Amino acid sequence: MAQLDVALGVDIGGTNTVFGYVDRSGRVLSESSILTQAREPASVFFKRLHAAAETLLDRIKEDCRLIGIGIGAPNANHFKCTIEAPPNLSWVFVDVATEMKQYYAVPVSLTNDANAAALGEMLFGAAKGMRDFIVITLGTGVGSGLVANGEMIYGADSFAGEIGHTTVDPNGRMCGCGRRGCLETYASAKGICRTMLELMCDRTDPSSLRSISPDELTSHMIFDAAQQRDTLAAEAFEITGRILGAKLAESVAHTSPEAIVLVGGLAAAGDLIFKPTMRSLEEHLLGIFKNKVKIIPSGLKHGNAAVLGASALIWDVLERTKK
Amino acid sequence: MAQLDVALGVDIGGTNTVFGYVDRSGRVLSESSILTQAREPASVFFKRLHAAAETLLDRIKEDCRLIGIGIGAPNANHFKCTIEAPPNLSWVFVDVATEMKQYYAVPVSLTNDANAAALGEMLFGAAKGMRDFIVITLGTGVGSGLVANGEMIYGADSFAGEIGHTTVDPNGRMCGCGRRGCLETYASAKGICRTMLELMCDRTDPSSLRSISPDELTSHMIFDAAQQRDTLAAEAFEITGRILGAKLAESVAHTSPEAIVLVGGLAAAGDLIFKPTMRSLEEHLLGIFKNKVKIIPSGLKHGNAAVLGASALIWDVLERTKK
Repeated sequence: MAQLDVALGVDIGGTNTVFGYVDRSGRVLSESSILTQAREPASVFFKRLHAAAETLLDRIKEDCRLIGIGIGAPNANHFKCTIEAPPNLSWVFVDVATEMKQYYAVPVSLTNDANAAALGEMLFGAAKGMRDFIVITLGTGVGSGLVANGEMIYGADSFAGEIGHTTVDPNGRMCGCGRRGCLETYASAKGICRTMLELMCDRTDPSSLRSISPDELTSHMIFDAAQQRDTLAAEAFEITGRILGAKLAESVAHTSPEAIVLVGGLAAAGDLIFKPTMRSLEEHLLGIFKNKVKIIPSGLKHGNAAVLGASALIWDVLERTKK
Repeated sequence: MAQLDVALGVDIGGTNTVFGYVDRSGRVLSESSILTQAREPASVFFKRLHAAAETLLDRIKEDCRLIGIGIGAPNANHFKCTIEAPPNLSWVFVDVATEMKQYYAVPVSLTNDANAAALGEMLFGAAKGMRDFIVITLGTGVGSGLVANGEMIYGADSFAGEIGHTTVDPNGRMCGCGRRGCLETYASAKGICRTMLELMCDRTDPSSLRSISPDELTSHMIFDAAQQRDTLAAEAFEITGRILGAKLAESVAHTSPEAIVLVGGLAAAGDLIFKPTMRSLEEHLLGIFKNKVKIIPSGLKHGNAAVLGASALIWDVLERTKK
């Protein structure tokens, strides 16, 4: 019986690391996760990852051949295959290539989670067949992956795609990056919470969220409240979309994408976030770009998106090498 | 004797059209110009262009073989080889491919002048050997050409690279595009004149430029005054560089270029514009990009830049087709 070529996709997160085996059509054959436990040395993590991945491989009924490993991780240097001072992990520097070589002889490729998400959408999702598009991840932070001419834009140092750290207002909100007014401080899950607090501060309208402490408030609660016709919660989404759309108009002026794919927690709010974003984008676009750019949701099954994205990275790398 | 392969580079401007023959090493064998006279039909222009180009070819002493024609023009659609509603020309729509086919059997390629400038720098100038860089043209307006992975970013519609129309201040100066606060209204030759007027309005410092009417004021005069230690003129450059540098930090966050090449009239002011731009760029960059991005002047001989850029376009297209 012919062997099935599969890639191992790994998404290293602050708390959990998800991994799974994916074939070239984007079918996830099996998926599992381990705790990242980044307080332990990275070498311990990679040993555990390998053991868990081997166990998972044994469980797949088809006869598989591992062709490569794609890894998504914060602050990943794609060119050097290293993780450098990741924000939510206590590792300082990890030479991922060397760690993985102890266990695997197949090619390993690494990139940040937003780039992995973009490659996932290109190979298996909403951007299938597109040569020019941008993926924006609206999670705890705001990440982005830009594709032009059918290729991921890594830039000179592999750190391209930091649209989350373009400036909405130079005198605006403090950002984790040490500067003020970054898009991330408005358009992320945390950003919409800050907007909600600002609205509760400014207005006298009643809101069910006034009983929630800032520490407890989540974007999900704001979503639920907006669904229940809480006017301030609905306005928080409106403001978030307006700011996001205006900023995306500037990204369009850079690379003129066919589409912008919004993914991640906040994108799951659907029309509540998509509608004001689209409206604001159109309003702010330079004339020649108007009515051209689609804003669309992810085409990947939510639970598998991270693993699909990471596996897409290595499928993409291997196919480019062949050419 | 072996024939020398040459490309014809043509730069269509509002007043003049410059053209010349360029070999693969970037040597301009001969160059000439005609008046564009865009009030006449485009077909008349292309007939005149062909006649003048043939005359010029005859004058070259070497035995040349024309391998292709590259054209830079405002509002050029690279994919369709058309010029669409150019701002400074009275033509509404020109099918350049069809016009040129009447006279030439060789491949013809078209792009806007900023993209041509970027390709010129990549093949013959300051960005030789770079795979990721941005060229900013600081002329009457502000244009830009972005290169990533060694390829020009045209985007989905071929109109990518409108950094001049990203927003510095949503309540800022009226822009020719109909919106407010575009980078072009601050960082172009006209933009620095507006800044100079604003300074003369706001301050009481003496300035030799107070005797010049707004209609007569040029960026060259501001440059000359700054050289003569006119404090307001020097400050106009300082402000221009500061605004430009802050905005370029956002472009870096998109494509993480190795270098940004500043070309065009205002870039000729040298340190007066480069120093504040560099300082402001570094100040505004996200941490991971600091001390990485060079800001450099054009590597092309000033008079020949437009012709070199246009010829670079067709050399680049032909070499990609071969692969």
